[in-house]
Amino acid sequence: MEKRRLVQTGFALIAVAIVIGAFIIRSSRRGDEPSTAALALGPQADGVIKERQLNPEEVEAALRTYPRPGKYDDEFFAFLSGGHAGTVVVVGLPSMRILKQIAVYSQDAWQGWLTGSKESEEIAKEGYFYKDMPLDWGDLHHPKLSLTNGEYDGKYLACADKAAGRLAIIDLRDWKTKQIVKTPNTVSDHGNYWTPNSEYFVTSTFFPAPQPYGTFEPIEQYAEKYRGTITFHAFDTNAGRIRLEDSWQIELPPYFQDLISAGKKVSTGWMFTNSLNTEMATGGTLEGKPAMETGASKNEMDFVHVINWKKAEELVKAGKTENVGGIRQLKLKTAASEGVLFFIPVSKSPHGVDVTPDGKYICAAGKLDPHVTVYSFEKIQKALAEKNFESNDRFGVPILKYDAVREEYVEVGLGPLHTEFDDKGYAYTSLFLDSAVAKWSLGGPRQKPGEEPWKLQQKLSVHYNIGHLTAAGGDSAKPYGKYLLSLNKWSVDRHPAVGPLHPQNLQLIDISGDKMKILYELPIGIGEPHASNIAPASLFKGAWTTYPEVGFDPRTMKKDPYGINIGQERVVREDEHTVRVFMTQVRSQFRPDILRVRQGDHVILHVTNVERARDATHGLALHGHNVNLSIDPGQTTTVEFDVKHPGVYPWYCTEFCSALHMEMTGWMLVEPRDERSGRK
Amino acid sequence: MEKRRLVQTGFALIAVAIVIGAFIIRSSRRGDEPSTAALALGPQADGVIKERQLNPEEVEAALRTYPRPGKYDDEFFAFLSGGHAGTVVVVGLPSMRILKQIAVYSQDAWQGWLTGSKESEEIAKEGYFYKDMPLDWGDLHHPKLSLTNGEYDGKYLACADKAAGRLAIIDLRDWKTKQIVKTPNTVSDHGNYWTPNSEYFVTSTFFPAPQPYGTFEPIEQYAEKYRGTITFHAFDTNAGRIRLEDSWQIELPPYFQDLISAGKKVSTGWMFTNSLNTEMATGGTLEGKPAMETGASKNEMDFVHVINWKKAEELVKAGKTENVGGIRQLKLKTAASEGVLFFIPVSKSPHGVDVTPDGKYICAAGKLDPHVTVYSFEKIQKALAEKNFESNDRFGVPILKYDAVREEYVEVGLGPLHTEFDDKGYAYTSLFLDSAVAKWSLGGPRQKPGEEPWKLQQKLSVHYNIGHLTAAGGDSAKPYGKYLLSLNKWSVDRHPAVGPLHPQNLQLIDISGDKMKILYELPIGIGEPHASNIAPASLFKGAWTTYPEVGFDPRTMKKDPYGINIGQERVVREDEHTVRVFMTQVRSQFRPDILRVRQGDHVILHVTNVERARDATHGLALHGHNVNLSIDPGQTTTVEFDVKHPGVYPWYCTEFCSALHMEMTGWMLVEPRDERSGRK
Repeated sequence: MEKRRLVQTGFALIAVAIVIGAFIIRSSRRGDEPSTAALALGPQADGVIKERQLNPEEVEAALRTYPRPGKYDDEFFAFLSGGHAGTVVVVGLPSMRILKQIAVYSQDAWQGWLTGSKESEEIAKEGYFYKDMPLDWGDLHHPKLSLTNGEYDGKYLACADKAAGRLAIIDLRDWKTKQIVKTPNTVSDHGNYWTPNSEYFVTSTFFPAPQPYGTFEPIEQYAEKYRGTITFHAFDTNAGRIRLEDSWQIELPPYFQDLISAGKKVSTGWMFTNSLNTEMATGGTLEGKPAMETGASKNEMDFVHVINWKKAEELVKAGKTENVGGIRQLKLKTAASEGVLFFIPVSKSPHGVDVTPDGKYICAAGKLDPHVTVYSFEKIQKALAEKNFESNDRFGVPILKYDAVREEYVEVGLGPLHTEFDDKGYAYTSLFLDSAVAKWSLGGPRQKPGEEPWKLQQKLSVHYNIGHLTAAGGDSAKPYGKYLLSLNKWSVDRHPAVGPLHPQNLQLIDISGDKMKILYELPIGIGEPHASNIAPASLFKGAWTTYPEVGFDPRTMKKDPYGINIGQERVVREDEHTVRVFMTQVRSQFRPDILRVRQGDHVILHVTNVERARDATHGLALHGHNVNLSIDPGQTTTVEFDVKHPGVYPWYCTEFCSALHMEMTGWMLVEPRDERSGRK
Repeated sequence: MEKRRLVQTGFALIAVAIVIGAFIIRSSRRGDEPSTAALALGPQADGVIKERQLNPEEVEAALRTYPRPGKYDDEFFAFLSGGHAGTVVVVGLPSMRILKQIAVYSQDAWQGWLTGSKESEEIAKEGYFYKDMPLDWGDLHHPKLSLTNGEYDGKYLACADKAAGRLAIIDLRDWKTKQIVKTPNTVSDHGNYWTPNSEYFVTSTFFPAPQPYGTFEPIEQYAEKYRGTITFHAFDTNAGRIRLEDSWQIELPPYFQDLISAGKKVSTGWMFTNSLNTEMATGGTLEGKPAMETGASKNEMDFVHVINWKKAEELVKAGKTENVGGIRQLKLKTAASEGVLFFIPVSKSPHGVDVTPDGKYICAAGKLDPHVTVYSFEKIQKALAEKNFESNDRFGVPILKYDAVREEYVEVGLGPLHTEFDDKGYAYTSLFLDSAVAKWSLGGPRQKPGEEPWKLQQKLSVHYNIGHLTAAGGDSAKPYGKYLLSLNKWSVDRHPAVGPLHPQNLQLIDISGDKMKILYELPIGIGEPHASNIAPASLFKGAWTTYPEVGFDPRTMKKDPYGINIGQERVVREDEHTVRVFMTQVRSQFRPDILRVRQGDHVILHVTNVERARDATHGLALHGHNVNLSIDPGQTTTVEFDVKHPGVYPWYCTEFCSALHMEMTGWMLVEPRDERSGRK
């Protein structure tokens, strides 16, 4: 009996031990796989998780997004627009750190942009329409990477200026703005896109206006005299510059044409742009008329514009254009009658028009309708061949039969705006009113058994009021998937208060798995990230770290005729009032470092940074003269200024360069010449 | 026997189970404490650690710095200077996200700063010296939070402009720049600091110059005619403005005075500034003379300036000043003879001078000597009382005996620059040449048994070439410890190449434990973070999210006389050429939205954002006229411009505000008046 009890006790103990063991085993598991996390984590990490009450999703997000110091962990670069900051902001993904702000339309003193450098001023001047109306800021909305076969090639970035009807080209060798071009006859370029091999950078107007530029017509003559345009800016892919003389544009009705997207692969040669305000409302809030927000929201349908740009190019070459405001313009009448321009009805006030990566479908969403409408390029071609038009627009443009070209009508949620794509057959649409991202399946064979095509799969809440979204490569012929950025317009209480002007808010979303997940939230307090392109970091490995030779001009990307080397420094008095200075910089001195001039002189200063070491940038700030230059290794920069008042004006290097950087200084000594004084 | 075997087997099984159980228990432990990490982490997290090969330190850093979406995880705000970007950049710690860039000296189109708004232009104009030499950028080096009893009070931020000899005041209610002041007689203000109750914001010159401003003297007369100054800008802590009429300055020898620090607690009433170039070198690289970097590095010792500012204030009140360039100036001779100004020898070319939190010690490091020299305030007072001077400087300034005032001489490493302090009795010195942070013990009772005072404790490598460092509260009477920022000047290969202009690099260092640890690395590609102040986020909880009433002027912080509410909108033709417009903005319309003017008109536009909702900021961009306004809820802004050319100029809201933001537009219609044309 005793033995029996002992055995029983033994088994009971075994059972208890097994239960305990099983419990321990169980508690060390989570999900299907046993964890070795405890081996990788220290007790400190453990304490942090407890202290911060991080949930498993946050822990994973932390581990995925954390940039290891000194390692190149960012897989992608997002080229974000700075909106009305007039800049491009480059953010590394998934760390979400700002790697660089690129100065484009607006002053950037850090980069020496529009703070004295003649190169930057000349680039800006190219974009003026009137020389007495200078522009030193712009509203940069949609940065677009140049394309080869519809895929990002990492060479250039271009972006229009909504505020002034301009475009800018950035070279991704030195990451600097090379050219700003005023689009003829436009007061506002908003939509912009490359053709698939960057033959053209295409911009569409937002606000119609009388043409040519500077023409006054009463607003009452809006329908008759105001016109939109879409402009095909010819791009020299070798030189990296727009050639306005080879460019042309198509006159469009006075709708607000807004965003555009180029056909790709099967739809190469075609261009699509949406439009709003087919009502041709003009506001008049103080004149007894409805505000634009009401007036432009009356029609149930607006138009997607379908443009055969290859055909247009032929007509341009055949001389079927008029010269309007200095550019060849294909008139609306010609475009409508010669098979260049067609309309498709689209739900009211659409925001985006987006072509799928295979070029087969065109997606557009009217922001006041909870659906994305999907049009088939094949059906469009069939309808065109069969002349399956429902009527002509009042401007004579054939309107394709909606039912003949529509492929699907996908319900996604409230306030759909923009759609981008991944590499697995899904589309992602931003929902402004829902503050959400909708993931939906495209047509075609499904990777997941039983999944319906053209169907909403998931809605993920974002905060707050998303505008654009961007998936990696998501507007190109080669989407990369993995990450999506939600560019949220309001941040409200997502971040601590830093005054009435709130940062906007970016959310990084993991789209690699079945379900979208928010990984990271980034306040952006330096501009309005309006839209972006996301490309693999590896595309930009060829970025220059110094200029190829000493005396290099970033504007021309050639040797600067005024660039010099050590030993060639000199001060030349060219005439009674002109002094030309050839200066070098090297750690840590200027040569010359004393400049003796007279009041009333005009000084032309050519500064060459003769350094060959990576990161050995020097600055030159000149007291009182509003001059700050940023001169990279090898670069030559010129600044010109008038010496108006006598006195002593020191200059110094503004880019910390060595232990003796503080001693890298100089003196401009201005002897009085006359009694003029402009004291405040 | 069978039963016995069974019992034996039972016990064996129990033993095995216990061994297995113990093994499982053991493998779930690490260090002293049992881990629950396995509970907090999912298998995904585990996979990420393996895939990314994160070491335990990286895992911990990731978990500590990750900002949970939507949570206010940042414990501190770092107010970083933007250097020659002319801005202040606010970064949350430990997430290292940029919460906001505050426009100060330079244009910021996003914030509508110097892109049309009259308030910003008037603030900038206050800082001009000559009205025909406008300034729209500055070099902002050392943001300093206002103080009460030597501690940050979270009310204001002030910062000098090295490039133009100015200072700026930022109000931390709405986080906007309120005032820019030109310091009389200076061409370059570099060092700056508050007195302990913000009675004065004190700036010291970097470059000496002939006085008053605008005086020419040959550089050969440098010793005789060039002078530095330290200026005590009287600050009205209620109004939040400098009162120049109550301010005064002290004339100093033509050394480069550079950084300053105010005495606190026991040393309240005293001010300390370092200096370099006691050699009075002036360069002359093209004139056969040594460059500044050589000429200014000859003397073995330079001078710490010791200033009794309470005494100076008495002399100023007693009228012992001269009016120089519009300010009361205590002449060098008076300062030297009346017990205001003294010198202490310091190792050559010092960068920083820093007072310990208790006010008892003054630390200075000559960057070409691997030591920090610690001076005792008590010994200084004793030496002054005993007139223990080694001699007078050539300008008549008494030089205190070095051995009489030196407390310690602490070896820290190569290229020591700046020192800040924590809450546990340690000092942290940046080592430019070593690219490291040195942690060393201050004097006084030690918390750790056996620890020597005044001794190097640890050197932590940073990348690369650290300039300033900042500990939380580390320059104030109340250090917070926990975090330290290393503001590194070069980034070289720490981040992927983004063109020849490299981002600089911030490293966040954990100083809460015995050993410093790097937690995070942040590229800064929007300016040069020169220096910073770090304060608890909780200090700024009172930040405004809207203006207190509709029609508020951020410049005056009062109701704007031109502010209106809905229903009061009007267009008033004041005379043949002047049109005044009272406009409102609300989601999503302008009232008026049509403006009819004539070529040659001068338009004065007062815009009021009547919104009361947080984050409901509106913009106003006017095509062609270089105007972008950013108008926060309740704010009134004015812009004036000339209408030079006929045409149609749309305007629109630049801050995405609602689903109908795109329709928030207006038209300025300019009828031709004459034949003038300024076409490019």
